[in-house]
Amino acid sequence: MSTEMSYTETRRDSVCEGLNTDVTEGPPPLSDEDLRLAATYVNDARNGCRGNFKNDPKSVRLYNLYNHPAFFWTSHVAVGVLISLVLFEDPAVPSIRLDYWITMCVELLCVGLIFSRLAHQGVFSSEENFWRSKRRLPFLIILLLTLVDMVLYVILSEIGVTSVRFSRPLRPLLLLCMDRAKQLRAVFKNILLTLPDIITVLTLFLLSVAFFALMALKIFQNRRNLVNYSDGQPYMHNYLDTFFHLYVLVTTANFPDVMMPAFDYNAWFTLFFIIYLIICLYLFMSICLATIYNNFKEHLKEYVEDSVREKQDNLQLAFDILKVETGHGEKLLPKSRWMSLMRTVHPSRLDLEHSLLWDVLANKHTGYISKSEFFHVANLLDIQVLEVKDREPEFQRWFPRCYTSKASRLIRKTVANRFFRYFIDLAVVANAVCIALDEEDFEWFFMALFVFEILLKFYVFGLKKFFHSAMNMFDFVLIVAALVINVLELAWTSISNQTGALDFLLVLRLLRLVRLVYAIERFRIVLKTISSIGRSLLTYGGVLFVFFYIFAIIGMEAFSGKIIPEPVLANRTQNQPILCGNPKLNGTQFAMNRYCNNNFNDILHSFVVLFELMVVNQWHVLAEGFVAVTHQAARIYFIVYHLLVVILVLNIFSAFILELFMLEYTMSKEPAERRESIIERRITVMGLDEDESTYLNDLENEETDTNIRGGRRPGQSPAMRFRLPRGANKVEELLQKMYEIEREEDKSDV
Amino acid sequence: MSTEMSYTETRRDSVCEGLNTDVTEGPPPLSDEDLRLAATYVNDARNGCRGNFKNDPKSVRLYNLYNHPAFFWTSHVAVGVLISLVLFEDPAVPSIRLDYWITMCVELLCVGLIFSRLAHQGVFSSEENFWRSKRRLPFLIILLLTLVDMVLYVILSEIGVTSVRFSRPLRPLLLLCMDRAKQLRAVFKNILLTLPDIITVLTLFLLSVAFFALMALKIFQNRRNLVNYSDGQPYMHNYLDTFFHLYVLVTTANFPDVMMPAFDYNAWFTLFFIIYLIICLYLFMSICLATIYNNFKEHLKEYVEDSVREKQDNLQLAFDILKVETGHGEKLLPKSRWMSLMRTVHPSRLDLEHSLLWDVLANKHTGYISKSEFFHVANLLDIQVLEVKDREPEFQRWFPRCYTSKASRLIRKTVANRFFRYFIDLAVVANAVCIALDEEDFEWFFMALFVFEILLKFYVFGLKKFFHSAMNMFDFVLIVAALVINVLELAWTSISNQTGALDFLLVLRLLRLVRLVYAIERFRIVLKTISSIGRSLLTYGGVLFVFFYIFAIIGMEAFSGKIIPEPVLANRTQNQPILCGNPKLNGTQFAMNRYCNNNFNDILHSFVVLFELMVVNQWHVLAEGFVAVTHQAARIYFIVYHLLVVILVLNIFSAFILELFMLEYTMSKEPAERRESIIERRITVMGLDEDESTYLNDLENEETDTNIRGGRRPGQSPAMRFRLPRGANKVEELLQKMYEIEREEDKSDV
Repeated sequence: MSTEMSYTETRRDSVCEGLNTDVTEGPPPLSDEDLRLAATYVNDARNGCRGNFKNDPKSVRLYNLYNHPAFFWTSHVAVGVLISLVLFEDPAVPSIRLDYWITMCVELLCVGLIFSRLAHQGVFSSEENFWRSKRRLPFLIILLLTLVDMVLYVILSEIGVTSVRFSRPLRPLLLLCMDRAKQLRAVFKNILLTLPDIITVLTLFLLSVAFFALMALKIFQNRRNLVNYSDGQPYMHNYLDTFFHLYVLVTTANFPDVMMPAFDYNAWFTLFFIIYLIICLYLFMSICLATIYNNFKEHLKEYVEDSVREKQDNLQLAFDILKVETGHGEKLLPKSRWMSLMRTVHPSRLDLEHSLLWDVLANKHTGYISKSEFFHVANLLDIQVLEVKDREPEFQRWFPRCYTSKASRLIRKTVANRFFRYFIDLAVVANAVCIALDEEDFEWFFMALFVFEILLKFYVFGLKKFFHSAMNMFDFVLIVAALVINVLELAWTSISNQTGALDFLLVLRLLRLVRLVYAIERFRIVLKTISSIGRSLLTYGGVLFVFFYIFAIIGMEAFSGKIIPEPVLANRTQNQPILCGNPKLNGTQFAMNRYCNNNFNDILHSFVVLFELMVVNQWHVLAEGFVAVTHQAARIYFIVYHLLVVILVLNIFSAFILELFMLEYTMSKEPAERRESIIERRITVMGLDEDESTYLNDLENEETDTNIRGGRRPGQSPAMRFRLPRGANKVEELLQKMYEIEREEDKSDV
Repeated sequence: MSTEMSYTETRRDSVCEGLNTDVTEGPPPLSDEDLRLAATYVNDARNGCRGNFKNDPKSVRLYNLYNHPAFFWTSHVAVGVLISLVLFEDPAVPSIRLDYWITMCVELLCVGLIFSRLAHQGVFSSEENFWRSKRRLPFLIILLLTLVDMVLYVILSEIGVTSVRFSRPLRPLLLLCMDRAKQLRAVFKNILLTLPDIITVLTLFLLSVAFFALMALKIFQNRRNLVNYSDGQPYMHNYLDTFFHLYVLVTTANFPDVMMPAFDYNAWFTLFFIIYLIICLYLFMSICLATIYNNFKEHLKEYVEDSVREKQDNLQLAFDILKVETGHGEKLLPKSRWMSLMRTVHPSRLDLEHSLLWDVLANKHTGYISKSEFFHVANLLDIQVLEVKDREPEFQRWFPRCYTSKASRLIRKTVANRFFRYFIDLAVVANAVCIALDEEDFEWFFMALFVFEILLKFYVFGLKKFFHSAMNMFDFVLIVAALVINVLELAWTSISNQTGALDFLLVLRLLRLVRLVYAIERFRIVLKTISSIGRSLLTYGGVLFVFFYIFAIIGMEAFSGKIIPEPVLANRTQNQPILCGNPKLNGTQFAMNRYCNNNFNDILHSFVVLFELMVVNQWHVLAEGFVAVTHQAARIYFIVYHLLVVILVLNIFSAFILELFMLEYTMSKEPAERRESIIERRITVMGLDEDESTYLNDLENEETDTNIRGGRRPGQSPAMRFRLPRGANKVEELLQKMYEIEREEDKSDV
């Protein structure tokens, strides 16, 4: 605290001095340490993190080192390696198994790296109870447990006792402790906050399943001689089995099979199942989704509010360092300090860019940046600055004479024409048809055509512009990949006759059909929404990965080696039953469906099984298989997995998509100027915006647009422009915009 | 129009006369016709319908006749009978089949009744193109088509040609044309309005399925010798089959079986299926729900706005008739006219009640009802009025001496005690355990205990109060039912030894366990929400019924008699394969799963099959069964059903529950006085409210409450009170309240 005080005082003194001695010359320059501190705050605001560092120069330097890519990535790679160790440890993926001392050494190294990262943070942290904070303690415990586990395992395996590596399921939790896993943490926090409400609904749901199970038992028990399963087993004969059957019924996985014996006996018994499904499936499952959506929505709002507040806190701190008090008692930021701040934040950028940013931010009348204007700096810095000369195609710059010749202009007009695009689209369809019909003869012709098309586009639009469009990029990657594969395949077939693996990749050529869908406006909107969801999907992918990993490792400890795929499935005689290497499976549906490959023998197979369980269908067959080779209690594993992953996580995922659609929809109803942030509005007013829509959308417009602009105002346009994102891409941005709009409304009301 | 003009003028003249001649005596009384017209408008506002009748006296009388219960129910029963005719027509439910001339006669009668209802409406309707209006024309066409169909069928069957009754699938559409099917119409309108958006998403979805099918074909086609289904059939060998398999995969019904051959061949092929499911199942299906929810929400709001506007239009018309112009140019309603209006609207109620309503509505200062106050009359009339003497237990009135004796007071205290309830709850659990363990010996003891409990409650709380609580009602019905069944069973077993059918009903005793759940606060909230959903669920039940009916009749025409259940399933030898009476089913999964009872042989079986298809699991097995006995094209029937019912209707149902939860949640966050409507606030302020919560909730509080109230202010309390609904019960009310809150906000802003 004392350091901070002295710091602030120093700054303020110097400011006052500056103002007193010479007002026209501007305030005195800030010390390097002050600038670095301010720049650190601005960077934190941009990255959306709270450093919690002490603000003495040494800690600031340590914190900047902490954020240095080398340090940052080393620790992240260490977590990644630690997590992927499971591929090599027993039960390992067969072909890449490593001895346990190798994996142990790697693990030790990773744990060491992660711990050193944490220790690094501990040195500069301003938190009082750094090691006992809510976020660090579990982290530390996991690392400690891992070490204890490793020592125990080594000792026990040297004695010859096989033991369980109990720390392995904890590994994915380290992902949550990483610096940039903020969204992942937010989703997990959201799940925890949703639990109380959802537990009430789920308890009620399980109670009603239990109640219906009792009813089913009473109804069907006494009919034991009349109602049987098709394999002759008694129907609904004991309570636990009945409960499990009815639980499975809610997942619909055993419907209508579980109903058929009763249906065959008396058609009115179907009413029992229909009522049960209406109550427990349609009603309760909808209520689960509604409860989760309700909670999710609220907690999402809180999260966004926290993010915005954190950002503003950081910028407030930076502003407090940089500000100068004017004669009227106003606190403002002068240009000289802005320039030095920007030079510290972005040493590689030109001064020209910094003053462009100044022009956007600063108030025209006062010539200063006020606090509220400074709050936009994080958004402004994230907007890409383009030099106007980047707009011209490279060929125009390289061969201006040739590019403007009559023939060249004709080519450019042709390529930019709508019908050229139609022609290529037609070729894509023709190509797909040829692939579908296995007419491989034309393949080289099409390949040549598409390569020629891309070359033409390079020429007409320039490389930079071409690659700016995601659709062009997509085309390019596909063509190059297909080209490489085709050449490889040609070489391959001349060596051997095996065409297996590459066929799979060749099919990727079909992906080009996506561009047809993209050409239709109605579909493009949906695709754009999907792609804007895309990035955030990674967060949910991360959440699922954590759950999958934990369950996979528990599953591997419990079930690995119990089910072995039969090696010569194709050649076997039909009479011999398939048993997946375990006679206990005789007669089970699991063996009859040839599910031997659905096992927990290594992490990859485990993930496939867990995915199958997530899709829900036939999960009871899988569960019964593993129950048959172990114990009835194994059912608990599968039921808990279903409750957590299918009911909780997947519904949160649905809630997320629902909320996102609602947001996109609400945003699209707002008038255009409301949708833009203040900073974007200013840029637009100043004519400094680079219009994304003409830049990204179809090429024809772009071409015309370039001609007109180029012809009409060649010198007028500024040397640099901002590329504004049209339509928010990141969900977080979208949410923050929504939140800011709301706040603005509140303010205007007051 | 001219009639209306003259009407209004007449009224205004008389009003002016009245005002001029004697102000203190009040305005002149209205003519009976005017009163009837105003009362009709008020009734329309209460029922939420727009009469569209001409306002000459004859039409008004006709319109009131039209709304007379006898006429109303006759036509509704006619529609019901027409729809249920399908039970008796070929293919009929076997035991209740009727000859076609009987059903024909009934059908003719029903069509006649429905038509006469329509004609009745035509006589008084003020619409210009009554018969050609958007609502009547389809109705008329359906009736006409039915007649044509009947004539054709009779002629053809007399010749001996079997023909199709093509008008039968149209029958449920008559449900939509009924007077009170407003909500049903609204849901269908909602579905229609949602279609354009959802079709875009679904087209994109189907395109991607088609695309993945092409990829699958290319990947697996050439591996024909290596990858096979477990029954030796080729894997993904033709495009249409592959498409169908992948479509089924989106419904998850054939997962992981469809993946296993590829998985056995090469584990990496699972990636194809995982990517496919992530895109087409998790992403597209969520987007479908989001799109539907988005549309639903918007259209729901429009619907509520329309309803409120319609109501106010009606009340405006009534007010225009009743109003009196005061000296200041204000238009107000005097008490004399209010009383005569109320006497026309509710001839059976006492004048005391009418003036109570007047006290609530009228402005204390002016002594008149203004237009905005009059707009609340519809809500006010729906609030139940209770006489205070109804609050006392009957026994207190009948035997006051005995009831207030010391012994009686002890009994009352005991029964009202918390521990008495716990004791009964314990007995319920004990009873359930006994039922579960088949210990039937104690049954009579429990039965006696529960009957005694109910009798005690009758004594303590009185009959009227006892039956007001839904939970008590529920208890009572269960006990009486169990009693009757027990006695019946006793009689039955003494006659024969068959205990079949009644066992099923005896299990209903277990339902008493629900009261335990209801006793826990956390669960009660969820249960209350479910019960508030309950009524609106009927609307969605109606929507599903219409879809089920149409598909059932089409299915019966296409598939009836093709699959016949095997009569002696239990006794058959294991070696003989089950073929469901159709050799074409040999080797299909349908026959192997013994699905013979899943057929379209009569409407009840059809409904069960359609329910099974709605639950989705194994729908492809059912579909393949019906394809095997008919033609590949039958797949279209099942795919269309899936798209319409599962993707569209069920998602709309989910959207409805989601929205309802959101509403309940938003309402619960509003402060209490905001949640009440203006009229409820007035009643509360005047102390005229009957507190529902003490009336409905647990009995102990009620008892104490009664004692305190009774003791403290025996004479003070007014003779009549309003029973305010705490927590809106009907969804429509909830929505209208929400809407009114919003409008009030808008007004206060202006």
